[in-house]
Amino acid sequence: MGVLLGVDFGTLSARAVLVSAKDGGVLGESSCDYPHGVLDRELPGGCPLPADWALQHPSDYLFALRGAISGALKSARLSPRNVVGLGIDFTSCTVVAADDSGVPLCLKEEWRGRPHAYPKLWKHHAAQPQADRMTALALERGEPWLPLRGGRVSPECLFPKALQVLEEDPEIYAAAGLFLEAGDWMTFMLTGNLSRNACMAGYRALWDGEYPSSEFFGALNPGFEAIEGKLKGPVLPLGSQIGQINERGAAISGLLPGTPVAAAVLDAHVGMAAAGIAETGRLLLVMGTSTCHLVLGDEPKEVPGICGAVKDGMVPGFYGFEAGQSCVGDAFSWFLQNCLPGEVLREAESRKRSPHALLRERAQKLLPGESGLLALDWWNGNRSVLIDGDLSGVLFGLTLHTRPEEIYRALIESTAFGTRKIIENYRAHGVAVSELIASGGIAQKDPMMMQIYADVCGLPLRVAETKQGGALGSAIFASVASGEHEDLLAAMRAMVRPPIAEYLPIARNRRLYEKLYMQYSRLHDLFGRDENGAVKALRAIAREAEALSKIKA
Amino acid sequence: MGVLLGVDFGTLSARAVLVSAKDGGVLGESSCDYPHGVLDRELPGGCPLPADWALQHPSDYLFALRGAISGALKSARLSPRNVVGLGIDFTSCTVVAADDSGVPLCLKEEWRGRPHAYPKLWKHHAAQPQADRMTALALERGEPWLPLRGGRVSPECLFPKALQVLEEDPEIYAAAGLFLEAGDWMTFMLTGNLSRNACMAGYRALWDGEYPSSEFFGALNPGFEAIEGKLKGPVLPLGSQIGQINERGAAISGLLPGTPVAAAVLDAHVGMAAAGIAETGRLLLVMGTSTCHLVLGDEPKEVPGICGAVKDGMVPGFYGFEAGQSCVGDAFSWFLQNCLPGEVLREAESRKRSPHALLRERAQKLLPGESGLLALDWWNGNRSVLIDGDLSGVLFGLTLHTRPEEIYRALIESTAFGTRKIIENYRAHGVAVSELIASGGIAQKDPMMMQIYADVCGLPLRVAETKQGGALGSAIFASVASGEHEDLLAAMRAMVRPPIAEYLPIARNRRLYEKLYMQYSRLHDLFGRDENGAVKALRAIAREAEALSKIKA
Repeated sequence: MGVLLGVDFGTLSARAVLVSAKDGGVLGESSCDYPHGVLDRELPGGCPLPADWALQHPSDYLFALRGAISGALKSARLSPRNVVGLGIDFTSCTVVAADDSGVPLCLKEEWRGRPHAYPKLWKHHAAQPQADRMTALALERGEPWLPLRGGRVSPECLFPKALQVLEEDPEIYAAAGLFLEAGDWMTFMLTGNLSRNACMAGYRALWDGEYPSSEFFGALNPGFEAIEGKLKGPVLPLGSQIGQINERGAAISGLLPGTPVAAAVLDAHVGMAAAGIAETGRLLLVMGTSTCHLVLGDEPKEVPGICGAVKDGMVPGFYGFEAGQSCVGDAFSWFLQNCLPGEVLREAESRKRSPHALLRERAQKLLPGESGLLALDWWNGNRSVLIDGDLSGVLFGLTLHTRPEEIYRALIESTAFGTRKIIENYRAHGVAVSELIASGGIAQKDPMMMQIYADVCGLPLRVAETKQGGALGSAIFASVASGEHEDLLAAMRAMVRPPIAEYLPIARNRRLYEKLYMQYSRLHDLFGRDENGAVKALRAIAREAEALSKIKA
Repeated sequence: MGVLLGVDFGTLSARAVLVSAKDGGVLGESSCDYPHGVLDRELPGGCPLPADWALQHPSDYLFALRGAISGALKSARLSPRNVVGLGIDFTSCTVVAADDSGVPLCLKEEWRGRPHAYPKLWKHHAAQPQADRMTALALERGEPWLPLRGGRVSPECLFPKALQVLEEDPEIYAAAGLFLEAGDWMTFMLTGNLSRNACMAGYRALWDGEYPSSEFFGALNPGFEAIEGKLKGPVLPLGSQIGQINERGAAISGLLPGTPVAAAVLDAHVGMAAAGIAETGRLLLVMGTSTCHLVLGDEPKEVPGICGAVKDGMVPGFYGFEAGQSCVGDAFSWFLQNCLPGEVLREAESRKRSPHALLRERAQKLLPGESGLLALDWWNGNRSVLIDGDLSGVLFGLTLHTRPEEIYRALIESTAFGTRKIIENYRAHGVAVSELIASGGIAQKDPMMMQIYADVCGLPLRVAETKQGGALGSAIFASVASGEHEDLLAAMRAMVRPPIAEYLPIARNRRLYEKLYMQYSRLHDLFGRDENGAVKALRAIAREAEALSKIKA
């Protein structure tokens, strides 16, 4: 059997992995950072960006694709001719505004100084007002797709982002022949075939065999009625071969023309294949900058506050339920960059440990609740179960004795509480959860965090074997698209290995966390569900001050 | 006219100043740190301390007295024979447990390993349960002294601290012939005369011409009935000469035997003299690690949530009202020690600025509310108007864009909101406030903070001239005790200079702060007044975890 290439496009880098179709053995891998990273302060030319914006530079995707693939081939001592299929997964909804031939508008001289010409990253939250209007209108019209999307349109979806372009920069909107998921844009660039993948369309663009009606879009804004014209391309199911690498794709990727390419998959959702999950009740936590909470069900269920329930969206034959937390690893990185005192840095350096490792070493000596701290994990808004990008984080219980490692642990715990809230919400609406499977770098690197999750949720937690999560999943889909395996289940059976670690809840910790979770839950509702709550009021005041500061400037 | 020596004993150091009795001109000054600082983690021998404890080492006071005096004399090129009087002020209630001759128990071999043998610093908050019981019992018995103490006994007062000794270490309690304010202990050591000063006794030991009754103390705990026996010594009014330096005092201080010594004064309250305040309506903010809010009134008023209203307690002929915030400069220091990232430290170093100055430089570019942050300033509990040491700080509005200088500014703003809460409470209960006078190092060093206070409170704010606040005030009292001036008013007229800066509220900032204060006020009541509120619940969980952690250890 042949060798498959999976490429996982994350928030800050792309990772390529070469995998044996026979047994999933990893033959080589490499990752490559995006040179521009996330554009959330200003454009490359210096144009400042407002709060809540998050853009990317599309050249970064091509740069990182080429870099990661060549690195992986080199580490495996293989050549492009050994690759029998390529699969990719991508963050979503990361949406590229492009002309009809697929050229991103921001790469054109005339538009490069315009923020709306750049791809909006999944965590761009400035389309919250548009998302709110979509929710209100869908409720008013009784749109059938709304209950299966958690009852609320997320600002992270495609349509609020596209509507924001129309309303804030109509010239860019008019110039955009296509609004494309970055994943679909990439496969278009590689094969010349314009298509959409059913996973991203289902979870991020309200697609259920069709998009919402043009009447709905027109009622939002008359100029938005014809948005479907900018969504050209057939929607292809998971594991489809969308085409083969063409000459341009070969130049971009370094692969051989003719190599089969699978339809893109959402970067989190591809993790179900990588973790070998093909049954109900096993909740996959795909942990990275953010966390996705994925679980399969036999039936459609209307679960408020989730991102979506899509038939065949993750594994054929099941409804795939997705919920999520918009800020997990990002919160820890924020903490390290903005709050880490010299004392910790110096000790970490002198003991040749990473600051993360040193903080963990100190934090794991604490009992649950001992620090007196509790956080609401809303540093980047709340995806599930509140679906509200306007929320922000809160830290309770600070004293003059509070130490950095205590805050660090409180941040970790807050993400565990947020996960438990999601689990309880799934269960309350008929979706079973009886076991946690954690994947992603954090899951393998932080046993303390895994134990906290098991203790807070009161469930066994197992850690998926693969270090390459998304990239392995993409390789599995590539094995189906290229015909190496008959279907997804056969590919998973051959290519996925058993979990590498198991954490069981510890009774004493569970009891203490039960009390803390009760407080978390009260505060969650107090500030998250009240439209007049202080956390939301502060955001409104900040917007007013921001407007005044522009007048001043 | 002669030269007066004032010594101000703060939380971390003592400062001595030599002042001309004629015009208040500063002739020399010096400060000296306490070698042990604040003991809040462990005793010098390594014995660990529980949460909320704060002790000091009495040898530090003697060391710093000698060091500061000799430094001041040297800088003034004066000798001890030029000094015609000594006045001291001290943090309070910082209480020394001593034998009948005044030797602190912790200096005796047999007790040095026992935490309760050490002086409890003003901000020791572990006697909260004792304070709560005193409040409940006083309410039940209708004790007449309670309404004039804000309606609640603070854990920072003398009696809860002494009761904690009795209940947690009865041997130390039995061995303590005296519980003495550190200020009174110091004048005892210098003169051999055991006395109490009316200021500390009035504000920190419930003295109104007499202490509460032995029936009251006995009802708290039968063993506490005779506590008054450990409070020996007459209570002397402000500006009294309590005696002259004796041989031992000369050896301790380096001053000449026979030098007159004034009764000690509370370190904050002595600031009224230093600022030249002898009329109603002018609120003095004595800003340091904590802030005291002092104002004079013509009549007794029952103001809930203040620390006390004492006749002749600050300036003869007036009721002196005291309220306070238990954590101001301490919060900024905590932030600098525990939260300041390498990036700020590196920039400060390369630009040769202090981190405080760099943070201020960045923070002053922000408009009120622009960061979206809001804090509850309870890092060390709340003194006024909630009188609750169990409260802890909260930080609302954190996002992935939150920067260190934004948090720093939010901490400053939170202390301004706390001050406004105190002002509104004074006014609501008949005590006029029409102007702010700020004193202390922060007031002179941080124009941004002063403007924030003026904007948040909507009042003009003037900054007192003296850099030596407490020490100058002590010198003024020394001038009265030594007969250089006829009385306090005459001394103030001669020795105090006009304010050096004035800040008027800025309309735009006031409007934005009005909205933020509305949120602060809601959250203040939500978490501060509800016995079942989350902030208090977290403290209870932390105590439970702490107890479990001892079982584990």
